[in-house]
Amino acid sequence: MGERVVVIGGDAGGMSAASQALRTAKKHGRTLDIVVLERGHWTSYSACGIPYWTAGIVNGPDELVARTPEEHRKKGIDVRMRTEAVRIDIDRRAVDFVEPESGKRGKVEFDQLVIATGAEPIRPDVPGVDSSAIHGVQTLDDGAALLDRLEKDDPKRAVIVGGGYIGIEMAEAMVHRGLDVTVIDKAAEPMSSLDPDLGRQVHDAMEGMGIEVETDTPVEGFEAGDNGSVQAVVAGGRAFPADIVVLGIGVQPATSLAKQAGLPIGEHGGLRVDDRMQVEGHNAIWAAGDCVESFDRVARAPVHVPLGTHANKQGRVLGTNLAGGDAVFPGVVRTAISKVCDLEVARTGMREKDARRAGLDFVTATIESTTRAGYFPGAQPMTVKVLAEKPDGRLLGAQIVGRKGSAKRIDVLALALWTEQTVGELSQVDLSYAPPFSPVWDPVLIAARKAADLL
Amino acid sequence: MGERVVVIGGDAGGMSAASQALRTAKKHGRTLDIVVLERGHWTSYSACGIPYWTAGIVNGPDELVARTPEEHRKKGIDVRMRTEAVRIDIDRRAVDFVEPESGKRGKVEFDQLVIATGAEPIRPDVPGVDSSAIHGVQTLDDGAALLDRLEKDDPKRAVIVGGGYIGIEMAEAMVHRGLDVTVIDKAAEPMSSLDPDLGRQVHDAMEGMGIEVETDTPVEGFEAGDNGSVQAVVAGGRAFPADIVVLGIGVQPATSLAKQAGLPIGEHGGLRVDDRMQVEGHNAIWAAGDCVESFDRVARAPVHVPLGTHANKQGRVLGTNLAGGDAVFPGVVRTAISKVCDLEVARTGMREKDARRAGLDFVTATIESTTRAGYFPGAQPMTVKVLAEKPDGRLLGAQIVGRKGSAKRIDVLALALWTEQTVGELSQVDLSYAPPFSPVWDPVLIAARKAADLL
Repeated sequence: MGERVVVIGGDAGGMSAASQALRTAKKHGRTLDIVVLERGHWTSYSACGIPYWTAGIVNGPDELVARTPEEHRKKGIDVRMRTEAVRIDIDRRAVDFVEPESGKRGKVEFDQLVIATGAEPIRPDVPGVDSSAIHGVQTLDDGAALLDRLEKDDPKRAVIVGGGYIGIEMAEAMVHRGLDVTVIDKAAEPMSSLDPDLGRQVHDAMEGMGIEVETDTPVEGFEAGDNGSVQAVVAGGRAFPADIVVLGIGVQPATSLAKQAGLPIGEHGGLRVDDRMQVEGHNAIWAAGDCVESFDRVARAPVHVPLGTHANKQGRVLGTNLAGGDAVFPGVVRTAISKVCDLEVARTGMREKDARRAGLDFVTATIESTTRAGYFPGAQPMTVKVLAEKPDGRLLGAQIVGRKGSAKRIDVLALALWTEQTVGELSQVDLSYAPPFSPVWDPVLIAARKAADLL
Repeated sequence: MGERVVVIGGDAGGMSAASQALRTAKKHGRTLDIVVLERGHWTSYSACGIPYWTAGIVNGPDELVARTPEEHRKKGIDVRMRTEAVRIDIDRRAVDFVEPESGKRGKVEFDQLVIATGAEPIRPDVPGVDSSAIHGVQTLDDGAALLDRLEKDDPKRAVIVGGGYIGIEMAEAMVHRGLDVTVIDKAAEPMSSLDPDLGRQVHDAMEGMGIEVETDTPVEGFEAGDNGSVQAVVAGGRAFPADIVVLGIGVQPATSLAKQAGLPIGEHGGLRVDDRMQVEGHNAIWAAGDCVESFDRVARAPVHVPLGTHANKQGRVLGTNLAGGDAVFPGVVRTAISKVCDLEVARTGMREKDARRAGLDFVTATIESTTRAGYFPGAQPMTVKVLAEKPDGRLLGAQIVGRKGSAKRIDVLALALWTEQTVGELSQVDLSYAPPFSPVWDPVLIAARKAADLL
């Protein structure tokens, strides 16, 4: 046998790491014996697909699985399902585990360890929060539990706590299923990954879809019904009747094992890793995915951004390095995109409040344009907002809200952030133009130009 | 009166220059007396919209006009329509003009001159080419003449000479109108702005739409019918019956006036200008738009790229500088996008043949992916090809062919070229991901990663 690698967690970060480690080891003529401990029922799945599965737009759960345990085993990875790691012993290089169904306990030793334990929904610290009718949606098992309840209980009223992208996607899914839906958010506008002026457009779109939106309304507790059911959500001094509740107030890194083992945890609660995905100070311990902090290239500070695309990239970098290759994860710029109601929403870099918190002096420019030439059929309205630092004009962040064909344009702004462009430079870039795709000045260019003019 | 500025040409380049010069002069407390000579019937229009006007998808010609002569006059620009400049006298600082309808001739003196004469369709040097039934589509007047013939003659068979994007768009427009359409191209595949392997997909899509495509078929002549009509196109030794012919073999800079005046012309036939849009060696003469050569940032050489978006940007830079401001047009990377039949097609930078001609050693990577997560409804196939220089991996060019939602992703590749990214760096960039917009690895990243792996 070769070197033993134990991977805790069988989703994007862990399985990308395992697969890439095997490929890299082969190239270097090394042999790895990889064991994956996964406490749930699925590997390598798209948690991002859960709202669409809930809505009935995609079939689940199997369609959301990119690669099954069997497929991984065929590649030579020893995937152990329904097996929960419960302790990491760094000195003895071993992981204790339990199989929850049989209660069987065991231990597996490692030469190298990969921690890919993901994230878990934040549960607000209020009375009644432990009811099983209050659902998080982070894993495919969470999704399955939610679908099960929807089918068995046939609930009529859903309350979603939190108006971020997961909350809104879940609200929309519930509307699709015919439920009455209320979204409760403590912020002034939903979608607080945007500045409130753009969040307002999301608010309107949600109401247009028949979703009740209660902003400035912090959750205070949950009223229980019979048999562990929920009856109402108490928030902002009012009671909102509910047959089912979904939590959408974000997730936190799942690092209890790592903490227990004394591994370094950053200010956002994630494992601290270097750019090769090695846990700081531990040269045989690695981590990737939603349980780690990443480097924010714009703020030049650590950040926690739980997102499948980062987990995949980090896993690949980790696997390469673990097996003797050399790769770097260069960080993030906090790009995100989502479809909410009939809007497309995207953002990258800093919001106004991030820039203020960083003590930066900046201008903002917000423009209205269209996705196609104004005269072309199907041209849709879109808003682009950019933030640029004074006086040189370095791009700090950007946001897009619009109809079909708007939001993916955020990518060019993400790369502009990545390469530290000024808005002046950006306004001149040779972006593609033809009437079915863009006005003669692309909306991104118009926004950059307006910001440059303001400087 | 202030300084007299004469602008030859009232479309994108000329009118952007005039408008921006006025704005800038105001800011600097200067007065400009701007006279525009335009030989046609319209100002500031989208020539790119002509195929859609022909197809009946958009209304023309007024809907294609961004700003009318009247609107420009209200801003204080003396726009003289149906007035053709016929001679530039540099020593006396004057332009001779003629009004074709009345035959009236005149002269206007200038302190500064703006040349924005645009481009003209290339007419192959073969017998019969001068028939009025052989249409170019470069100006709105060309479009009006074509529409007029379509309505009056009710032709049944159209032959399009040239399978570039204008040729294909016009072919599609003719199919829309119910004509039988043949496209004749001397190249091995249509859409030669792409490499032939991707051009093949365009070829198939054209045939799928009922267009006959004749490749490797150079045009040899036109057979005349009665009264200046055309009867057939002779090409590749065969005669293709035609009631109407459209030329789509490209355009050339319209520089006969400039040449006559002894102004510097580059190797591609366009006016040579510096990055402030001043004609080389002439500090009171400026030029912008389809009549100039631009700097190709990838090839580091002059290039002629006639495109409305460049004309607008150049006009704006020109107007700023002419009126005492300071702006730079930083060049192009040859980005282009179009909708051809049911495909979206885009390209930026070098094709394989460009890279070979430049003597570069490079790899290519072509990948198939989808516009959305594979499991998400509406996911469409798309192909991405990238070229990267050996051994460091500098991105040299990229091409995309795919269905709805594919092609605008070229922008991130255009900016990557602009900022001289390597494919290794590019493969790690934080592009947006959510199931309705992208697989977890964006197709652009997959292509970059594959190229990086090949290096």
